[in-house]
Amino acid sequence: MDFTKTKADLSQLIGEKKVIQKNDGTMDEALFNSYGTDRTKVYPPNYQVLVFPENTEDVAAVVSYAYKNEIAIVPSGGRTGYAGGAVAKNGEIVISLSKMNQVVDFDPFLGTLHVQAGMITKNLHKEAEERGFYFPVDFAATGSSHIGGNIATNAGGVRVVHYGLIRDWVLGLTVVNGKGETYRFNGEILKNNTGYDLKHLFIGSEGTLGIITEAVVKLTKPPKDIRVIFLAVSEYKNILEIFRETHNFDLPLLAFEFLTDYCLDKVKEHLGVPDPFPAPSKYYVLMEFEVNSETDEEKLYTIIESITEKELITDGSIAQNSRQNETFWKYREGISESLSLAYTVHKNDISLPLRNMEAFLDEMTTLLTKKYQGFHIALFGHIGDGNLHLNIVKPKDLTDAEFFTQCKQVDPEMFTLIQKFKGSISAEHGIGLLKKDYLNFSRSQSEIDTMRAIKLAFDPKGILNPGKVL
Amino acid sequence: MDFTKTKADLSQLIGEKKVIQKNDGTMDEALFNSYGTDRTKVYPPNYQVLVFPENTEDVAAVVSYAYKNEIAIVPSGGRTGYAGGAVAKNGEIVISLSKMNQVVDFDPFLGTLHVQAGMITKNLHKEAEERGFYFPVDFAATGSSHIGGNIATNAGGVRVVHYGLIRDWVLGLTVVNGKGETYRFNGEILKNNTGYDLKHLFIGSEGTLGIITEAVVKLTKPPKDIRVIFLAVSEYKNILEIFRETHNFDLPLLAFEFLTDYCLDKVKEHLGVPDPFPAPSKYYVLMEFEVNSETDEEKLYTIIESITEKELITDGSIAQNSRQNETFWKYREGISESLSLAYTVHKNDISLPLRNMEAFLDEMTTLLTKKYQGFHIALFGHIGDGNLHLNIVKPKDLTDAEFFTQCKQVDPEMFTLIQKFKGSISAEHGIGLLKKDYLNFSRSQSEIDTMRAIKLAFDPKGILNPGKVL
Repeated sequence: MDFTKTKADLSQLIGEKKVIQKNDGTMDEALFNSYGTDRTKVYPPNYQVLVFPENTEDVAAVVSYAYKNEIAIVPSGGRTGYAGGAVAKNGEIVISLSKMNQVVDFDPFLGTLHVQAGMITKNLHKEAEERGFYFPVDFAATGSSHIGGNIATNAGGVRVVHYGLIRDWVLGLTVVNGKGETYRFNGEILKNNTGYDLKHLFIGSEGTLGIITEAVVKLTKPPKDIRVIFLAVSEYKNILEIFRETHNFDLPLLAFEFLTDYCLDKVKEHLGVPDPFPAPSKYYVLMEFEVNSETDEEKLYTIIESITEKELITDGSIAQNSRQNETFWKYREGISESLSLAYTVHKNDISLPLRNMEAFLDEMTTLLTKKYQGFHIALFGHIGDGNLHLNIVKPKDLTDAEFFTQCKQVDPEMFTLIQKFKGSISAEHGIGLLKKDYLNFSRSQSEIDTMRAIKLAFDPKGILNPGKVL
Repeated sequence: MDFTKTKADLSQLIGEKKVIQKNDGTMDEALFNSYGTDRTKVYPPNYQVLVFPENTEDVAAVVSYAYKNEIAIVPSGGRTGYAGGAVAKNGEIVISLSKMNQVVDFDPFLGTLHVQAGMITKNLHKEAEERGFYFPVDFAATGSSHIGGNIATNAGGVRVVHYGLIRDWVLGLTVVNGKGETYRFNGEILKNNTGYDLKHLFIGSEGTLGIITEAVVKLTKPPKDIRVIFLAVSEYKNILEIFRETHNFDLPLLAFEFLTDYCLDKVKEHLGVPDPFPAPSKYYVLMEFEVNSETDEEKLYTIIESITEKELITDGSIAQNSRQNETFWKYREGISESLSLAYTVHKNDISLPLRNMEAFLDEMTTLLTKKYQGFHIALFGHIGDGNLHLNIVKPKDLTDAEFFTQCKQVDPEMFTLIQKFKGSISAEHGIGLLKKDYLNFSRSQSEIDTMRAIKLAFDPKGILNPGKVL
């Protein structure tokens, strides 16, 4: 393909400044490459043309051109994904939404914010805060991730147990489909039963049906005050018991996370945080509650009393100030970073019905102990949502290739187990390239066939993020 | 078509007891006809074969047969719709879900209930209650409507302002598509990012993509105690101010409804309820709050003090017991019933962004006063959701035909106004047959084209509820 012509054509369409060709002297090669990849590090980027649209019209112009000329496209957000969903490895045009980072509109009545898709999630948090509101979707990568990418992957994070997934916060979407046509779904209305809800199809479609260019998100009131609690737990059965126990009190539980001793060790090792307790424990739980009154404060103590009396914990601590809140959260949110700093890891992000969790964990432990002899496994996650992050850590004496080959052999056995317990092989990370071969463990053949037909309706030439998901 | 053969074939497939032919001596004709219609009363039913499947396999068998023989199907739930979505007027096979009314499974851990689609909504409320949980989707027709029909039409109701639409409460769906294939979407897991969320396509698709046969719904904890407040308001601008005011206090607002004096008069006339206040008022507001403590009770009084001081109300009353709660709710929930008892009405169910509501109401009032001279208009609804029910009441001196002709002339002008203010022509009633010609006021041509393509993917022969929505 003549990429110089592609660059020239696109420059003419949307402006020279917005189009970059690899090694054209305007951008360092490593930076250029970084726009065509994500955090998986499994697939090296390989592409030649990068565009930075500034509005929906620019995106529509680029996609229309690509449609006419049958050139594939990869939409690029904050590139914090773990499934290879934003990797350009076959000479696609990469459309980075980074320059589309503005507030379009704000409705103070209901608290809705209309933004461009390239706004960094953390900045959306700030924009909401400055207006007296709160956007509750939060996770470790919000300092880099884009709101558009969050929506395209139906991001979850640490407060799903209370606030739900990002799907629950999207009122309206502007999307460019694979023919370059622009849809403006729903706007800012709360109720709209006029035919099929196409908006929800795009949420979690990983850029394969259209490119999200703008979104109207709902905001809420910020929690008045929060209490972060860190607990030491000796058995995982107790974790679920504690979770159940928190439901018996009428206090908003904003987060319920867990990690193993191995995870905590890695965070201590790499981020230099202090020990939470004098004695180590096999499991740790982080709970965050909203506390609005003295009555709430009392409820909190009743919960702690209750789980102590029932001997569900071996130690526990309530953060006394915002600095300690941060430390407790670092135990949990620092895990991925700590692991990726020093190790090669194979990530699994799975979910189970909570009532099947215990039986699943028993069988999974047996399987993994047998199949990954001597490997370290970092287990942590949003246990309140039935969501486990399961990171297999490469032993030093294996090459990356040997390690990933072995993981690839074990994965289907674990997915079979997940299927048996009616879970999902990807709770929040999505499918991308990484899980594509295993989609059938979570979706039936007729669902997959229907997805293909739907893909065809939105993207008849298959130019949008080809090879991902389906 | 040889319906006697259809009956015989279907009897062989699913059992003789489950198949009825019109006037075959097993069912009264009026009752038979009632299964092929809804509350619109605009379209007379005209069909010959009615089936009562008892499980998903029965439904799949009937649809497979219909697919093979290219016979159209109308799914029939509680038939409480207002858009003609469940009308069989062209000799379709009617599949009533009425016999599919059982609990399939219950998970006490999270509180999820797996039920067959034909369960009456009120019974689902009871099943939840008996298990210590609460299903919050509620509206006047829950004594007849089916949970499957609620999902197929994305039902809203009186507590959307707090709990959202039914879409927010559906975890899993079992659906039979237009080829007779069965999908089992998601089950009971909370997080599942494995490709396109097809479940959401079916919610609100009015039986045109598939027949919902089972659902897994989330339950929640019941509100401890509620307070129902009825207010007299002189101007509609004040209604929105009151709504805004309730947001400034941290007290869960479960419902925020309004009605005009005309609506109240009709309820008093037909349901024999007493006057709420000594002096009449132009508008009335019903608010329902959740109250869990004395602090909450104090907050409630602060809200009332605040709206009184700001002169937003002319009178107000807090229900003192559950009987008075019911009376206040009857003022609001008795409106549709009172009107339908004595009048022919033309219903509109529209929604607007709340911030555009005031300007819209000004222009709408001007339009309707001009176009419907001397007509009574019953205006009420879920104002907290931006959702207005607008019922035009037929004057005595017009025939039904003259009346509906006139309404049909005015509707497009009102829809143009709604479009101008970025609203929806159908907030919760759906499209069905009644609003089909006006879908383009709320959805773009490319959305409609895409919907057709999606319809084709699920229902290639177009046998599912043909003529509805699209």
